[in-house]
Amino acid sequence: MSTEQIPEKFSGWLGHEPEAAKGKMVWGEFEPKTFEETDVDIKISHCGICGSDIHMLSSGWGPTPYPCCVGHEIVGKAVRVGKEVKNIKVGDRVGVGAQAQSCLECEDCKNGNMTYCKKAVNTYGSVYPNGKDKSYGGYSNYNRTHGAFVVKIPEKIESADAAPMLCGGVTVYSPLVRNGCGPGKTVGIVGVGGLGHFGVLFAKALGADRVVGISRKNDKRDDVLKLGADKYIATGEDKDWASENARTLDLIICTVSSEKMPMSEYLSLLKVGGTFIQVGAPDGGNLPPINAFTLIGNGIKVGGSLIGTPQEIEEMLQLAADKGIKPWIEVRPMKEANQAIIDFEKGMPRYRFVLEN
Amino acid sequence: MSTEQIPEKFSGWLGHEPEAAKGKMVWGEFEPKTFEETDVDIKISHCGICGSDIHMLSSGWGPTPYPCCVGHEIVGKAVRVGKEVKNIKVGDRVGVGAQAQSCLECEDCKNGNMTYCKKAVNTYGSVYPNGKDKSYGGYSNYNRTHGAFVVKIPEKIESADAAPMLCGGVTVYSPLVRNGCGPGKTVGIVGVGGLGHFGVLFAKALGADRVVGISRKNDKRDDVLKLGADKYIATGEDKDWASENARTLDLIICTVSSEKMPMSEYLSLLKVGGTFIQVGAPDGGNLPPINAFTLIGNGIKVGGSLIGTPQEIEEMLQLAADKGIKPWIEVRPMKEANQAIIDFEKGMPRYRFVLEN
Repeated sequence: MSTEQIPEKFSGWLGHEPEAAKGKMVWGEFEPKTFEETDVDIKISHCGICGSDIHMLSSGWGPTPYPCCVGHEIVGKAVRVGKEVKNIKVGDRVGVGAQAQSCLECEDCKNGNMTYCKKAVNTYGSVYPNGKDKSYGGYSNYNRTHGAFVVKIPEKIESADAAPMLCGGVTVYSPLVRNGCGPGKTVGIVGVGGLGHFGVLFAKALGADRVVGISRKNDKRDDVLKLGADKYIATGEDKDWASENARTLDLIICTVSSEKMPMSEYLSLLKVGGTFIQVGAPDGGNLPPINAFTLIGNGIKVGGSLIGTPQEIEEMLQLAADKGIKPWIEVRPMKEANQAIIDFEKGMPRYRFVLEN
Repeated sequence: MSTEQIPEKFSGWLGHEPEAAKGKMVWGEFEPKTFEETDVDIKISHCGICGSDIHMLSSGWGPTPYPCCVGHEIVGKAVRVGKEVKNIKVGDRVGVGAQAQSCLECEDCKNGNMTYCKKAVNTYGSVYPNGKDKSYGGYSNYNRTHGAFVVKIPEKIESADAAPMLCGGVTVYSPLVRNGCGPGKTVGIVGVGGLGHFGVLFAKALGADRVVGISRKNDKRDDVLKLGADKYIATGEDKDWASENARTLDLIICTVSSEKMPMSEYLSLLKVGGTFIQVGAPDGGNLPPINAFTLIGNGIKVGGSLIGTPQEIEEMLQLAADKGIKPWIEVRPMKEANQAIIDFEKGMPRYRFVLEN
């Protein structure tokens, strides 16, 4: 059901070796996976920049199958739709997040951990089950993805705004919803970067009574309050912040990660029975030590969350449309992708970069 | 409403200094709290021996207000009942667990963490809000406790069997129930001592599909299977136990605690979305390091649980009556309490000692 001329080969910013992560990607052609009737081809208008992109380009999470084209916050127009795809039609404005394929039936898939599904194909840097095809991301002109992982973008959301929600947004939306964020609840968001700024936006949109932004320094206080937070805590500068705010939060989503972060103090902010969810992982993955008395004495839980299901992405987009959620983004031209990732690594986004074709 | 002669002073095994924990308790009189119309006096028939008793006798958890009479698994007959007590009448066979008083209204109380309530009085070793009265436990002839913390023992349960359920039993029953133990669930119990043996009994009674006992050595295998477990894992002796049982459990209750326990391997036994609840705390309280990738990749949670509410104790006793649960206990005469705690410290109970008057 092709309606316009789609090139046989797609083109995008390719990483050929780890230096690519330092702004050394090269524009070039790549061969998309073999088209199947379950697939959708997307003409890309926007792609958000996510920290994972840099890890993959630099082989930071293990050897990357170069050449690699990253980007898993893809928005564009469906230009070819396989016959077995029911949810999308040609011409739809659609999005793709971090996952390109998985079984959607195993425990991993049902829990939004599709990355760990035995049949998982990530949106970029994976090899398909046929052992030949590779997956390529959205720093490019076209993308081909399994229809079950392509979602429609509601009309009210601009494409550039939708893009960073597809990975960054759902990474915090999913644990908020799964852990009861809503009326009657007070929610803390640790770290206010790309993920954390979505945390504040979505926690408010979900109706939490109070949302507290928590970061090290006071320089983000004004931003966080403008985003809608009811309170801000600067853990590196506010005196006695832990004792003054002890037992005030039902749920904490922690978007930063460091072996040196004040974990015990964060946990002390939880009410009895509260929950702390880690969504970022430090290099090596070690969290600061957790004391058994902290867990037992307050009956709290410490957990983690990876991404979210396609269904959660759809629910999140609908919430964003209904509540008029406007992420804080900076749009950069696709042709300046190398400069954009250099600036990203300097921590410049306030709070997310989006590449535009 | 006194119905028999109750002495003004009660008598019991008193610890006068930390050496008491080594079998140097001395029988003697003590002054019970001032009777209030919310109180119940109990003529004690049985009292279980709990690890907490030793910690308190030895000042292991901070300075103990000697003289101290320990024991918080108390069963006996209600012999005096204050006018404001509605749930108990004189002559009832009743029990008292680890808590003698608390507000029952704050978040701590509602979550079964009454010990942390600002108005909490533990069954022994606490000073009452009047600053004068002290609480004394059940290695004695009588006990006086607030009626809200006195429960009736169902007819079908023998007194000696009921006693160790009042602290040891509910400590595992509460997190099992709160974390969904029941049909369709597979449950692991780490450590098979006093608490762990109740874990196996209650997990089965609650209808879990499979219950797996997990301990270091094979010497408890037969006991655990006799208790009703479907499987036993000896982590110190079974080869490849972690990989062979990966992702098989919905819930783990961990009754042992050591900085050196194989925490990562325990967590690897959890299914996606599973829960690990710690009910024991190591000296100092530090748990082995937890890796963020373990939490995030499997979407699991690690939590803790302290004791349980009086209502949970009642539900547990009813379940035990309905299902005919028979804990494995050894009854010792109250007059041999010193020898009993010496033997307890040697790890001799299979699986709980109960003192009998």
